[in-house]
Amino acid sequence: MKVLIYNEGFHDSEPAVKAIYPNGIHGRIAEMFTEDGHEVVIATVETVEEVFTEELVKSADLICWWGHVKHHLVPDAVAERVQNAVLGGCGFIALHSAHLSKPFKRLMGTACTLRWRDDDRERIWVTAPSHPIAQGIPESFELESEEMYGEYFDIPTPDEIVFMGWFAGGELFRSGCTFTRGLGKIFYFQPGHETFPSLNNEYVTRIIKNAGAWACKKAPADTPICIHASESPESLRK
Amino acid sequence: MKVLIYNEGFHDSEPAVKAIYPNGIHGRIAEMFTEDGHEVVIATVETVEEVFTEELVKSADLICWWGHVKHHLVPDAVAERVQNAVLGGCGFIALHSAHLSKPFKRLMGTACTLRWRDDDRERIWVTAPSHPIAQGIPESFELESEEMYGEYFDIPTPDEIVFMGWFAGGELFRSGCTFTRGLGKIFYFQPGHETFPSLNNEYVTRIIKNAGAWACKKAPADTPICIHASESPESLRK
Amino acid sequence: MKVLIYNEGFHDSEPAVKAIYPNGIHGRIAEMFTEDGHEVVIATVETVEEVFTEELVKSADLICWWGHVKHHLVPDAVAERVQNAVLGGCGFIALHSAHLSKPFKRLMGTACTLRWRDDDRERIWVTAPSHPIAQGIPESFELESEEMYGEYFDIPTPDEIVFMGWFAGGELFRSGCTFTRGLGKIFYFQPGHETFPSLNNEYVTRIIKNAGAWACKKAPADTPICIHASESPESLRK
Amino acid sequence: MKVLIYNEGFHDSEPAVKAIYPNGIHGRIAEMFTEDGHEVVIATVETVEEVFTEELVKSADLICWWGHVKHHLVPDAVAERVQNAVLGGCGFIALHSAHLSKPFKRLMGTACTLRWRDDDRERIWVTAPSHPIAQGIPESFELESEEMYGEYFDIPTPDEIVFMGWFAGGELFRSGCTFTRGLGKIFYFQPGHETFPSLNNEYVTRIIKNAGAWACKKAPADTPICIHASESPESLRK
Repeated sequence: MKVLIYNEGFHDSEPAVKAIYPNGIHGRIAEMFTEDGHEVVIATVETVEEVFTEELVKSADLICWWGHVKHHLVPDAVAERVQNAVLGGCGFIALHSAHLSKPFKRLMGTACTLRWRDDDRERIWVTAPSHPIAQGIPESFELESEEMYGEYFDIPTPDEIVFMGWFAGGELFRSGCTFTRGLGKIFYFQPGHETFPSLNNEYVTRIIKNAGAWACKKAPADTPICIHASESPESLRK
Repeated sequence: MKVLIYNEGFHDSEPAVKAIYPNGIHGRIAEMFTEDGHEVVIATVETVEEVFTEELVKSADLICWWGHVKHHLVPDAVAERVQNAVLGGCGFIALHSAHLSKPFKRLMGTACTLRWRDDDRERIWVTAPSHPIAQGIPESFELESEEMYGEYFDIPTPDEIVFMGWFAGGELFRSGCTFTRGLGKIFYFQPGHETFPSLNNEYVTRIIKNAGAWACKKAPADTPICIHASESPESLRK
Repeated sequence: MKVLIYNEGFHDSEPAVKAIYPNGIHGRIAEMFTEDGHEVVIATVETVEEVFTEELVKSADLICWWGHVKHHLVPDAVAERVQNAVLGGCGFIALHSAHLSKPFKRLMGTACTLRWRDDDRERIWVTAPSHPIAQGIPESFELESEEMYGEYFDIPTPDEIVFMGWFAGGELFRSGCTFTRGLGKIFYFQPGHETFPSLNNEYVTRIIKNAGAWACKKAPADTPICIHASESPESLRK
Repeated sequence: MKVLIYNEGFHDSEPAVKAIYPNGIHGRIAEMFTEDGHEVVIATVETVEEVFTEELVKSADLICWWGHVKHHLVPDAVAERVQNAVLGGCGFIALHSAHLSKPFKRLMGTACTLRWRDDDRERIWVTAPSHPIAQGIPESFELESEEMYGEYFDIPTPDEIVFMGWFAGGELFRSGCTFTRGLGKIFYFQPGHETFPSLNNEYVTRIIKNAGAWACKKAPADTPICIHASESPESLRK
């Protein structure tokens, strides 16, 4: 599977972040996929236009997106490219603050706003125990420190809410949500703030790997309906 | 609107319950509807077979159900009668421990089990702010004491999750859920333990009133499709 | 209720269209709302930028959109304005070929493509008989001539499929679909081709009126959560 | 995978049926699974109580159900056994007239009625092209003769509508629907009338095989949450 990883790369040189993710957030995410033998291509906000070419994005099986404060610097053309790839069947994992990223907002159609607060203890609960993304995850697990993300989370009703997050300060959140858009599968997952080691947590890691396996593009030969390559719906007629 | 209220009536003579609900849990629920001018008929586990006749249940616009430890004493025939009324368009509100009541379980098809603990502080969050049942409710409100109900709540995916409950002890719950079954609208709402004054809370009261208005049966003349009176699907043909 | 009606106005001077809709497609839709006492503001592709000002769109309760071959001429700023109004609670009805309009595509996040053919006999079936939009509609009704729209319709899973369309030539379609986005309610409805008198049909008319009543913005005082006016999610904190 | 197949076995000795399914409907379904190396256990209405023991049903990975006019003769205890197995994670495929079978009705909670007519030409359309059950199926295919099943089909809103059926006589139907109940996955599929060779059709066969692979129980070791073995929700607490 060919995995594209976007991390804006803005926080990664801060000492607090470097201490947790010495190879950057993208480096940590890349590890999750390379250690299972997948091919990985990485881009940051400075390289994304050049690296995530039309051709590369079209060939991807899975795109994993982490962004925070530089969403506006991602070119619209790249966002559209990613959106089209997802509609064509490419998987998409939006991590943490990627809820406000351009590709995610385009795919959702809503403002994707939420409530937030700096640092809190989170407990994540499984709310769809038979879902492939929840396999191997206990009924709940804790993250000692995470950024609080709370409701109301302005997203369309998800296909399935696989995880919900409880925060000690009094909030809760639909932390792990799936969506289908076109031929593509999308997973939003809330943990992953840059100053906390959530992406090193064994369950968070397992969830991201599960989500990759669940969302990744299936062999195109199996899908006789090609709905996005066509300008004219008429061409779909047999 | 004609409202049928079932309360098993087992706890209502206990001093702790009487202190909060001097007219019984059914009395408190009845008040919510009579003060808005609706007709109310009440039954307890001892009278339900006699009071909730086939004819009465068929004529109801809304059925509100509270039960706890005497679910098994409700005759199957009554449960079936209620289920059929709901499928035919009657609204149904299942309060608190009615998640294990016979009519609710029949309508859901699942075990409807959940996690629970005696007494905890709850904060209820609105997660579908434009839903009619959420009108007039702030983005969150607290109940100082409620029985904790936690995930995994074994129900089919709700049409909408209007409220979620956060508990100080670390759990969370899909506290206010809507379902459509046949022509009927169903609302499950988690607060309402017999030893806590939740049903006196202004927001809980508003939510139950909103739910009644949302779920109540619409004028049958407006619904040309009568799908449940018929034994044979063939009779549906024009 | 303040209703904004967009009709691109390109076909309306063609004799075949004028014979059916002498006051234009917008004129026919406007009638449906003015005869019930609602305020109506109309725009075409030539006037939409000027007429659908930020202020007007923000104040709308319902926006009704008909477009066909001039979608690309609607300014992005207007499309964004409409999208934001819907997310803030304004109702949105997308008629017929508005499936490819900018506001609808932005709200869906998908390509919204479909299969089509010129002229066919359609029978529309009610598939959610208790839905407010289906009230007063028989279990099925026929349109002697409509443009065939067929599956696969590339939209996110609707909240409810209220109507499905059957076409004599062998296709079928999810013809009447509801969606919730932000605080707004959306209804897509397939009939309404410019050269056929569908918008004069009594049931089509009733459905559009029902949809307007169902989708229209509710009094803002009832909605304490204002999620879209805010730049910073932090401002949502009490 | 251990597959239990129920066919009531009432029609199978009729010449018209025998000509199409010489080994019975159960025999044809069994073939689909044995040719892929799965273990199969078969029961008819006369043997189901004895064959589908508590122990056997609990150990099943998939249950495939075909019934028509003898639904009422299936013991309630067997229906409950099957329902519990599904809630515990066993897959369930309900074929054709199994829409009125006891296990399916218990799992749905609705009347499951529909419109029907004897013999018609059907075209089945894919409406969820990325779903695993649709893999290898063209955008549409025809069955020259099938029993017409039409809307309104009184079921809860499916998780996904994978296929819709068009009938030459003017009806349409949600022909292939998925549901999740408890830990179990359910697929209802409309073709399969006893006097037509639909179960010999290559696409129908592929769909049933796909559905089996999609619905079959996953290894229990992967699912730490055991919600149905417990009488008391309290026992779920760690």
